[in-house]
Amino acid sequence: MAQDYRFFAATRRRCFALLFEHRTRSGRRMETFWIAASLLSVVVLFFESSASDLFPNTPDILWRFGLLELGFTALFSVEYVLRVLCSPRKTHYPVSFFGIIDLCTVLPMYILWMMPSLAGATDLVVLVRLLRVLRVLRVLKLLRYMNDAGILWRSLMRARRKLSIFFGFVAIILCLFGGLMFAVEEGKDGFTSLGASVYWAVVTLTTVGYGDITPHTATGRMLASILILLGYSIIAVPTGILTAYMSQELEKGRAARSCQNCLHSGHESDAKFCAHCGAVLDSDRSQPVDK
Amino acid sequence: MAQDYRFFAATRRRCFALLFEHRTRSGRRMETFWIAASLLSVVVLFFESSASDLFPNTPDILWRFGLLELGFTALFSVEYVLRVLCSPRKTHYPVSFFGIIDLCTVLPMYILWMMPSLAGATDLVVLVRLLRVLRVLRVLKLLRYMNDAGILWRSLMRARRKLSIFFGFVAIILCLFGGLMFAVEEGKDGFTSLGASVYWAVVTLTTVGYGDITPHTATGRMLASILILLGYSIIAVPTGILTAYMSQELEKGRAARSCQNCLHSGHESDAKFCAHCGAVLDSDRSQPVDK
Amino acid sequence: MAQDYRFFAATRRRCFALLFEHRTRSGRRMETFWIAASLLSVVVLFFESSASDLFPNTPDILWRFGLLELGFTALFSVEYVLRVLCSPRKTHYPVSFFGIIDLCTVLPMYILWMMPSLAGATDLVVLVRLLRVLRVLRVLKLLRYMNDAGILWRSLMRARRKLSIFFGFVAIILCLFGGLMFAVEEGKDGFTSLGASVYWAVVTLTTVGYGDITPHTATGRMLASILILLGYSIIAVPTGILTAYMSQELEKGRAARSCQNCLHSGHESDAKFCAHCGAVLDSDRSQPVDK
Amino acid sequence: MAQDYRFFAATRRRCFALLFEHRTRSGRRMETFWIAASLLSVVVLFFESSASDLFPNTPDILWRFGLLELGFTALFSVEYVLRVLCSPRKTHYPVSFFGIIDLCTVLPMYILWMMPSLAGATDLVVLVRLLRVLRVLRVLKLLRYMNDAGILWRSLMRARRKLSIFFGFVAIILCLFGGLMFAVEEGKDGFTSLGASVYWAVVTLTTVGYGDITPHTATGRMLASILILLGYSIIAVPTGILTAYMSQELEKGRAARSCQNCLHSGHESDAKFCAHCGAVLDSDRSQPVDK
Repeated sequence: MAQDYRFFAATRRRCFALLFEHRTRSGRRMETFWIAASLLSVVVLFFESSASDLFPNTPDILWRFGLLELGFTALFSVEYVLRVLCSPRKTHYPVSFFGIIDLCTVLPMYILWMMPSLAGATDLVVLVRLLRVLRVLRVLKLLRYMNDAGILWRSLMRARRKLSIFFGFVAIILCLFGGLMFAVEEGKDGFTSLGASVYWAVVTLTTVGYGDITPHTATGRMLASILILLGYSIIAVPTGILTAYMSQELEKGRAARSCQNCLHSGHESDAKFCAHCGAVLDSDRSQPVDK
Repeated sequence: MAQDYRFFAATRRRCFALLFEHRTRSGRRMETFWIAASLLSVVVLFFESSASDLFPNTPDILWRFGLLELGFTALFSVEYVLRVLCSPRKTHYPVSFFGIIDLCTVLPMYILWMMPSLAGATDLVVLVRLLRVLRVLRVLKLLRYMNDAGILWRSLMRARRKLSIFFGFVAIILCLFGGLMFAVEEGKDGFTSLGASVYWAVVTLTTVGYGDITPHTATGRMLASILILLGYSIIAVPTGILTAYMSQELEKGRAARSCQNCLHSGHESDAKFCAHCGAVLDSDRSQPVDK
Repeated sequence: MAQDYRFFAATRRRCFALLFEHRTRSGRRMETFWIAASLLSVVVLFFESSASDLFPNTPDILWRFGLLELGFTALFSVEYVLRVLCSPRKTHYPVSFFGIIDLCTVLPMYILWMMPSLAGATDLVVLVRLLRVLRVLRVLKLLRYMNDAGILWRSLMRARRKLSIFFGFVAIILCLFGGLMFAVEEGKDGFTSLGASVYWAVVTLTTVGYGDITPHTATGRMLASILILLGYSIIAVPTGILTAYMSQELEKGRAARSCQNCLHSGHESDAKFCAHCGAVLDSDRSQPVDK
Repeated sequence: MAQDYRFFAATRRRCFALLFEHRTRSGRRMETFWIAASLLSVVVLFFESSASDLFPNTPDILWRFGLLELGFTALFSVEYVLRVLCSPRKTHYPVSFFGIIDLCTVLPMYILWMMPSLAGATDLVVLVRLLRVLRVLRVLKLLRYMNDAGILWRSLMRARRKLSIFFGFVAIILCLFGGLMFAVEEGKDGFTSLGASVYWAVVTLTTVGYGDITPHTATGRMLASILILLGYSIIAVPTGILTAYMSQELEKGRAARSCQNCLHSGHESDAKFCAHCGAVLDSDRSQPVDK
């Protein structure tokens, strides 16, 4: 009995090391496997969505894609169950960011398979499509294996106050110009509501410029020119703010990496030798843990 | 009588503290109230402008929105009257930036309500629309509560000379290329006047690129390519100028914030503790004034 | 006789001071006059080009604009003749940049007025239009009065080698992707020739994105995405280069401005007082020369 | 016999110096010749592709362009053979970057001329077009003579890790928003497949904004606005990274250039005199090798 328990505990620990720790050799092999599986499932999704165009002569193509999808859903379901079972604190993983993502990418398929009547309901077509498209979130599983993605996130978090002030300011400009254009363009040429006008202002101020809504009166064109040139001056402010914080974060990363021989710090995160004494630097993930 | 006067004066002072000073606890509650009211009135405006699309089955929807509008206009009228009455120098508030904004967002509705014939006049339709849209200026009321918005404004003011030189230069380029394209494209494909050509040049140089007016001759396309690549080189100049001034302003803000314990300055404006001695820093607005 | 000559010489010197030197008080008045005249003539040009739309009920509107144009051409002709006559070295002004501009903006009208048959020739319509549009060059007369425009020009000159390497590299990318898209899109959807494909590549790489030529095949869209993301990485290189040189030029301008009281240098070009000792700084153009 | 061999060896060495070394005087003349030939062949290609529009009255224009093409192909074939023959290590040049390019720009024409039936095959029209367009790669021959192009390449190589993390992050955002828009827009207005939706997301996030695929529902427009403003914040990150590395590379180039008189280093790569002692600096390519 105690033997049994100890065996379970050891299996769970091994399982945990395999799934959550990427520093072990077999853990890294698992990592590669899960990355490949996630990427492949998303690629399959892309082919599925334009299946009738790509394979016009294969009538049962959607059925084959359904089979593939069955496989991927089974695989990711097993992954989810294993992750829930082997995490030491049961309640921690299911409510974490990745736990929710992992659940969201398998649950919709079960809902769709259990309620076949849903697929036929004409007034729920958007919901069904959304449930099917949720599988695209599998691409977020890759974030788990991107060690440096945190820099962008931390920079965003630190810059959020300045960015929110800036975007508040931009929102006010957008409302103003959207309202003015709505009045000036007399509701024609796509300026049919305040919402559409503000959408036009977003598309214009950021220099995207689709051209689906454009001013045609002389006054409207002058207003648009002013908005463009005004926005043109303030357009790089958020990137300036973010770049400043990101370079600070990158500096921190360098400072935290020091040589174990001469204690010299400030090495690039992809450096292999100490720039000061030539000793081999510990790589980020070079300490094999499993025996 | 003197009692009366003193009571009025006290009420006015209290009223002034409530409306103009945001450092008191009740003043901050009022601030939250006015921010919510401004935001809500603008959101209602957006829904009103596309009411017939959003609620097609409610024939009296515009009447209901009119009722809501009545409420908001009454509220902001009361705010305006109170602000005029309780400001110590009577002539200061009505001619200030916010005084004019506050007036502009209530006055048009009174004009429209008093002159119902206006709404039916076909040749004044733009004017009526403009009067109605002026309510969107209520979004500017929010500027009053954005403490850091001044940085952008001060940076713009300090950089105005360099920016105006740059935009003068850009204006000359725009006129030149607009004129050339007007001659080359032979008045076709939207290049119907010098004004339209210069509008095309603005849209092109700033990389907005709507596509409503595009060159179709080989010469025109070569000219457009030159304009694009030329503008491409000078496009970041205004942002460079503005970013430089803004970082100076941000530095000033940091320098002005110093610890009351060790007199160490240079703290981030959202720091809560002194980075040097660990003492609690005064937050920007933590001094309650009202008792 | 000598009296006469001396009188002429004095008049010429006075005339030269009025037209070429902007540091005298009357010279600055003349400057304001010429700036206003240039601006006004260009504004009139804009109104003329869309006269039939703006004034549909005035049949003789083009005749009136012709009269205005007669006035401006006379004025600028007088300016040109005076400038030629009063410049000390006769051959210097007519071959200078501004001399050629001044000539180009009056000569076309004389050609058009002398050869009325030209306006009716159907196969010369582009030439006539070009001659008429050349008047837009009058906007370049303003450059004469923009003291700081030289900074942009000098920066461009100093950065020309790096910029030309960069644009050579960009040209190679444009040719490559233009050629590939021409082959892939099978000559449809606007990709009718190599030239049109390269024009598409310019419009795409610089994020202008008109949308008049767009890929419709899956391969074409993937190629377009690669071009966009590739170009996206190198897009800010020229602005980076230019901004670096411009900030150097601006620094030079600051270093060259020093206080006459304490010899402290490094003042902003729009500073009025020395930041070090508080003495009044010489403004850029404050030394009246004429008595 | 030995005489013969020595003559061949000398000829080969001379040939090598002419073709591969650009520091000799005659080598530089050859360089100019090959640059001109490459440029001219590409220009001819452009004219050929729109020949029927440019010369509508010349029925045998394509035949004439074919003759020109014959000349260029012969010239570049001779160049390729000479380069292969005179390079010291036979296997090195044909497998190098430029060797492959040189081959790719002559081989397709031989294939097309040897298999005339290919040009008529309707199902191989894309392949034939691709073979013809491969000649546009001749523009890459110019890279051989751009000494400073290496800076951009080296910067790209050094920044590849950070850039790939960033583009991985962008790819995830693109997939997410592409999937959401595909679900929301209900497969209409060009959002026909996941691939098309991601293509739209690329075009939108990078502010290209063709406008061939645009959202028309209110939810879709709000999602698009969020994507635009989100992308707007992270848009300059890659340029920031690349610019930082490029300025480092440019600094290196300066540091490597030192005066032979006073050993002062840090000169601009286009400086002609030492900024410290005034001595003439060695220009980059001023050491004539051939006698």
